[in-house]
Amino acid sequence: MVISFLSDFGLDDGFVGVCHGVIARIAPEARVIDVTHGIEPQAVLQGALVLADSLPYLPEGVHLAVVDPGVGSDRRAVAVRDRDGRVFVGPDNGLLVPAAERAGIDGAWGIENAAYRLERVSRTFHGRDLFAPAAAYVAAGVVPEELGPAIEPASLVRLDLPEAGIRDGEIHATVLLVDRYGNAQLNLSAAEVGQAGFAPGTRLGLGSRQATVVGTFADAPAGELLLYEDSYGRLTIAISGGNAAETLSLRAGDDLTITGN
Amino acid sequence: MVISFLSDFGLDDGFVGVCHGVIARIAPEARVIDVTHGIEPQAVLQGALVLADSLPYLPEGVHLAVVDPGVGSDRRAVAVRDRDGRVFVGPDNGLLVPAAERAGIDGAWGIENAAYRLERVSRTFHGRDLFAPAAAYVAAGVVPEELGPAIEPASLVRLDLPEAGIRDGEIHATVLLVDRYGNAQLNLSAAEVGQAGFAPGTRLGLGSRQATVVGTFADAPAGELLLYEDSYGRLTIAISGGNAAETLSLRAGDDLTITGN
Amino acid sequence: MVISFLSDFGLDDGFVGVCHGVIARIAPEARVIDVTHGIEPQAVLQGALVLADSLPYLPEGVHLAVVDPGVGSDRRAVAVRDRDGRVFVGPDNGLLVPAAERAGIDGAWGIENAAYRLERVSRTFHGRDLFAPAAAYVAAGVVPEELGPAIEPASLVRLDLPEAGIRDGEIHATVLLVDRYGNAQLNLSAAEVGQAGFAPGTRLGLGSRQATVVGTFADAPAGELLLYEDSYGRLTIAISGGNAAETLSLRAGDDLTITGN
Repeated sequence: MVISFLSDFGLDDGFVGVCHGVIARIAPEARVIDVTHGIEPQAVLQGALVLADSLPYLPEGVHLAVVDPGVGSDRRAVAVRDRDGRVFVGPDNGLLVPAAERAGIDGAWGIENAAYRLERVSRTFHGRDLFAPAAAYVAAGVVPEELGPAIEPASLVRLDLPEAGIRDGEIHATVLLVDRYGNAQLNLSAAEVGQAGFAPGTRLGLGSRQATVVGTFADAPAGELLLYEDSYGRLTIAISGGNAAETLSLRAGDDLTITGN
Repeated sequence: MVISFLSDFGLDDGFVGVCHGVIARIAPEARVIDVTHGIEPQAVLQGALVLADSLPYLPEGVHLAVVDPGVGSDRRAVAVRDRDGRVFVGPDNGLLVPAAERAGIDGAWGIENAAYRLERVSRTFHGRDLFAPAAAYVAAGVVPEELGPAIEPASLVRLDLPEAGIRDGEIHATVLLVDRYGNAQLNLSAAEVGQAGFAPGTRLGLGSRQATVVGTFADAPAGELLLYEDSYGRLTIAISGGNAAETLSLRAGDDLTITGN
Repeated sequence: MVISFLSDFGLDDGFVGVCHGVIARIAPEARVIDVTHGIEPQAVLQGALVLADSLPYLPEGVHLAVVDPGVGSDRRAVAVRDRDGRVFVGPDNGLLVPAAERAGIDGAWGIENAAYRLERVSRTFHGRDLFAPAAAYVAAGVVPEELGPAIEPASLVRLDLPEAGIRDGEIHATVLLVDRYGNAQLNLSAAEVGQAGFAPGTRLGLGSRQATVVGTFADAPAGELLLYEDSYGRLTIAISGGNAAETLSLRAGDDLTITGN
């Protein structure tokens, strides 16, 4: 059984390593695939988006995700099963829901059974003490029903995803993610843009600048600002051979307007 | 057999990757768990602390650790076995001892047998040429006695760990580690603080600021400076929803005073 | 079968994780060793050097490498087999050739067979959609001949590697790589330097500074600028206990002159 693992732990401390250790002690046969641990500290929305986007490419199994600013408070610890049989393990703060809703949520359970956690549970590191053990036990054959009481799926915490608006030929969008290359992914699909009348090859206004709609970086000369449909289907701002986020000072959460020209 | 692996190699160069390759060539069945490779360059004390803290969460096996400013000098290369049968492999500079002493040191050996290293040993990358091979051979069944001559455990290099002092109701402490979230771990346990008369809920002075003793981040309003017992039992400075180390300009090694109020 | 994996994807986004997922779905038995994903964005030469240097330490298997500024353009996707039976998978932009030429290129094929890629291939993430699947299928037993038409090895794109010159007792060299410790690797071997008449122990001029030729860091007092043969055989600039690249403002691609003294 494969456990995928996403968090905001970073790789500079030992957080990820000890979670791998905990999993290996409980489920020596389980294989762990690290999706990423570079989610910005406590950025639940970013974590939820990356998890949901990555899911179709990950083997069906257990999906451990920990971005958990409310650790130690009364936020619930949950396991969520989708209709494909995938089991998501993490805090009940919205992190798991977009991924689990891709196939549809089949059931949810609170993680409360002391048999499936470490003996001593700290108040600040549930990744190690609670979530990694629960994921490992599920990978080793424990069904989520054993982890704790059933939860009404409708009661799971949901995130407010920013919504793009298209009005009077203008797109009002929000930057969801900025990647390593400085590409800034927006909260709307190329299909939605198409509906507003922007065809590939069109020049658009982006603040005081001009951007060209292209299919890939190589379709534009180096240094040119461009808009393309990224590999997850979202409209994304880039600079051919450059770093758009740095050049335009774009960060996740920034709002911007795209205008016809 | 599991090999845990900690170093200050970082992940941007190929150092960690080639060590994994060397291990896989010698011991194809061994599984490697990366504890972290984000130890600050040449920060032996930080490496020793993270290794010792992580140990109870790691499967018993071989524990490879390389933070090695003295590589190529006459510092010894050693394997240390503890009373649980764990075998630690790395430089004799204090890095391994705090971890090995958790269960008690059972024996130590110099790594000198040319049969258990790469054919050509460079003077600057013993992680790849000497330590990874030794760890892999042990994982594949070689007993540490075969690696080289026995060493008197008392002769192993020990680190000077900074000691906290509690005098006149004031705590004089040192920052041991700063983590990704900006939490600054101090060199004293919550139990020690309790002995000095500071109860949870108390307000304390931290330089010119005030901090509250809490159980977890969520016990304090966002932005508030707090002291809590971290998941390894050490008193730690944090800011709820913020980054304490950045706000207070704290770094590993900094001394500070905590006063009653 | 082992797949080694090198890229410029970084670890902060989910790029590497989804490639691992894709591989695990196609070839569940394959083991993946991450060489590094910290190649500077789109730095093909750096990727090629790190791959070629790492190769002797990696198990023979499939070597997946993706540094791909031309993704989505008409640059070819290729598999290259060397005389040891290793199969390299990646873009035809020079990235694979220095590694493949270590043992000699045995054959090359375009990756064109739609049976060995994801159903939908984006124009901007061939690592996930094309290269990881191809590598996984080869690890699962598909021979490179099945991936697509044979390519004349001589037609593979080659990189221009900067060449060092030794004239009038002066070395004109280029910085190839700067590592985590600030050591700056030059494009010439210690053997080449020796030919120009510089013996270990010699003091050399490095711009307006003086450097000593040593065998390892510990051979020089802390803070001293030094030149040593690094563990891959290249002459490298370092500062004992310090960071040479930072101190001297050296970056990959910089030219410098080393003079006798």
